[in-house]
Amino acid sequence: MPDFRPPRPGEVNITLPERTDAALYFIGRIQTPWRSLKECPKNSAARKDVTATIEVDEPFAAGLKDIALLSHLIVLYWLDRSQRTAILQAPSHVPEPRGVFALRSPVRPNPIGLSVVELVAVEGNRLTIRGIDCVDGTPLIDIKPYFASSDSFPDAKRP
Amino acid sequence: MPDFRPPRPGEVNITLPERTDAALYFIGRIQTPWRSLKECPKNSAARKDVTATIEVDEPFAAGLKDIALLSHLIVLYWLDRSQRTAILQAPSHVPEPRGVFALRSPVRPNPIGLSVVELVAVEGNRLTIRGIDCVDGTPLIDIKPYFASSDSFPDAKRP
Repeated sequence: MPDFRPPRPGEVNITLPERTDAALYFIGRIQTPWRSLKECPKNSAARKDVTATIEVDEPFAAGLKDIALLSHLIVLYWLDRSQRTAILQAPSHVPEPRGVFALRSPVRPNPIGLSVVELVAVEGNRLTIRGIDCVDGTPLIDIKPYFASSDSFPDAKRP
Repeated sequence: MPDFRPPRPGEVNITLPERTDAALYFIGRIQTPWRSLKECPKNSAARKDVTATIEVDEPFAAGLKDIALLSHLIVLYWLDRSQRTAILQAPSHVPEPRGVFALRSPVRPNPIGLSVVELVAVEGNRLTIRGIDCVDGTPLIDIKPYFASSDSFPDAKRP
């Protein structure tokens, strides 16, 4: 069931197009300690010590071959409890409504969540990871190797 | 039109589920100098100097508000010329077929491309960026702020 929060002052919603353009398969599930959106950690420091499990379903699990060669992964998942229309949003930590593409909010036109995680262990179709903040049971859509050469920008600036 | 390459020795394909589970909106397009997959750069060094443009369509463009506060973005796009069934793949740079989730191949069950890019300029609904390797006209599905605190792992290991 969607778990929409009420709109905040200054938020702006759009009308989405009538048709979608592409379709995804759920390829597994992410098991975390957080049973509801309210329990999920709001900042990355809080989640860094917490272990979670990614379980990849058949027929996709064969694609995990050689994953243990990597120390870090990029995990993409489907935020299936998010509404998709809030184009300007007013999170409590910013003074004025901000555009959705300047926020890591789970509420977005295509509600794809992204976390860079540490790979702790691999056992069959199950990966133990650290560094994810999604609710228990979140559908998995992709796992990618993290490459420092193209993905790490330690000096990136943010507001 | 899909632009499938022929299978390589040792590659393994799966049968995809009959039904998909979620749907995406294309929210814009990415304009690059590369008109075909063959022209696209194979390594990140080659693309770092090249400028590309992201054009965000209405009604999504309002979501770009405040994006200029960021130096780097994570761009997600739909690799619409990729087949989706190759679960073990044999790129020329690896000795044996490798699982798709240990590769950044565009061929994957959910063909979502990801690049961390430098934001060079913002003009209305158009972003000038550096650091993307996709073919001209690739559909855009999301833009996220890059946060060094949670996304930068300079010591990540890879094969």
